Amino acid sequence: MASFAKATAVRPIGDGRFDVTVDPQWSIGGKPHGGYLLALLARAAGQLAPREHPHVTAISGSFLSPPAFGPAEVRAEVLRAGRGVTQLRASLTQDGRPVVEALITQGLLDDQDPVWSGAEPVELPDESECFRSPVDPPGGMHLPLMEVVELRVNPAQLGFAVGSPTMRGELSAWMRLDDGSDWDPWSLLVALDTLPPVSFDLGHPGWAPTIQLSAYLRRLPAPGPIRVRMHANDLGGERLDETALAWDSKGRLVAQATQIAGVRIADR
Amino acid sequence: MASFAKATAVRPIGDGRFDVTVDPQWSIGGKPHGGYLLALLARAAGQLAPREHPHVTAISGSFLSPPAFGPAEVRAEVLRAGRGVTQLRASLTQDGRPVVEALITQGLLDDQDPVWSGAEPVELPDESECFRSPVDPPGGMHLPLMEVVELRVNPAQLGFAVGSPTMRGELSAWMRLDDGSDWDPWSLLVALDTLPPVSFDLGHPGWAPTIQLSAYLRRLPAPGPIRVRMHANDLGGERLDETALAWDSKGRLVAQATQIAGVRIADR
Repeated sequence: MASFAKATAVRPIGDGRFDVTVDPQWSIGGKPHGGYLLALLARAAGQLAPREHPHVTAISGSFLSPPAFGPAEVRAEVLRAGRGVTQLRASLTQDGRPVVEALITQGLLDDQDPVWSGAEPVELPDESECFRSPVDPPGGMHLPLMEVVELRVNPAQLGFAVGSPTMRGELSAWMRLDDGSDWDPWSLLVALDTLPPVSFDLGHPGWAPTIQLSAYLRRLPAPGPIRVRMHANDLGGERLDETALAWDSKGRLVAQATQIAGVRIADR
Repeated sequence: MASFAKATAVRPIGDGRFDVTVDPQWSIGGKPHGGYLLALLARAAGQLAPREHPHVTAISGSFLSPPAFGPAEVRAEVLRAGRGVTQLRASLTQDGRPVVEALITQGLLDDQDPVWSGAEPVELPDESECFRSPVDPPGGMHLPLMEVVELRVNPAQLGFAVGSPTMRGELSAWMRLDDGSDWDPWSLLVALDTLPPVSFDLGHPGWAPTIQLSAYLRRLPAPGPIRVRMHANDLGGERLDETALAWDSKGRLVAQATQIAGVRIADR
């Protein structure tokens, strides 16, 4: 199994370009995982930021087409080198064609508690009482990502798997990296998009490809598992919005994301 | 007063470039309004999309530096021309320097009701019982935007103006365009960032400049006023996240946004 660090290794080849490899382990249903691709982009672009801005703190990505597994190139550019942040753009390209385009803000995260918090950590049963998502669910897609991310979904929300979704548009889970390494700002980009589409919980079990996704990293996570809650506000016009919030083992918000995804309502 | 249509007029000059004018009417405290700048970018980039994709449906922007009022140029590029959407990037430049960089998804919106909704419209007193925000609040910044956008904030949340914020991190309001024109996908980009920073409601009355903002347009709004609720999840590390949801006069979600903004906690 490719560790996250190895799967997101980047090799600078000069002029803001980086050789990367799209790793098949970090994939879902035969396609590279979106959060993993953003992590690749952030790792590469981050190398152009100064030492004072070592962390990805915000990233917005447009998903153009799923890249093939194997070699790819990141092309990154500093848009503004500021005192507090470095703002960049980056493009993941394959055969000279962009497949994911991103805007990135690099800065400095710390592990301080929030000054104010309005988002209580999602309540979940103990990890041992949540079911680990399988790599090959019955009648479902092949999910190599579930080998490297230990995803334990709230059993009260697993009705979708037996045709009885709660219809509340919400899923939540514990997550750990399977190799025992701790979460960091880049791997949190994976965690923010690892739950099944919440449309599953709304009676629409088809895949929901991400069109645009934006994530903010809020602080360095404490060691241990994270809790992630994903919910939707509106399903219509063949689009679903999803908001993910991730809390560390100390119950502090460490990352958050929103995305707009396509959903084929007619497929039912 | 410059109407929204006039203030966001774009003139193609070929090769994906557009002449625009940054209008001082659509400004806050001497700086162009962020949502207005995104609307300028979307209007220009949209001209590169085919007739089948007439609407901005998603936009993510990185705010690099506040542009000066007056002439500017948008440079836009189609990243992927798909069947359902056209994905683009666009840059607002002044003196050849990027000031706002954006990723845009153009598509086709309709005015259909949602298949499912999990976000009830925010409850507000009648418009007549909400106070219209002034252009020149006592001791505050000059806000020309408040001449063109009729912002009527929930009076129960106005404690911040007298030093008694609710500390709930939430503000909500009715909004209309002052000239009587109806909301559209582009002007909704303004509405999503027109409430004061919700840090005002958390006892931090300093300005909160947007670093990145992402908005999704969900359907064409019904005529009449919209309701917008903005709330925060976490304030810390000199950063505040804000989520805005906008409902039309039929109570349907028409637009939503998240942003990460800078807040100087030490300024208190």
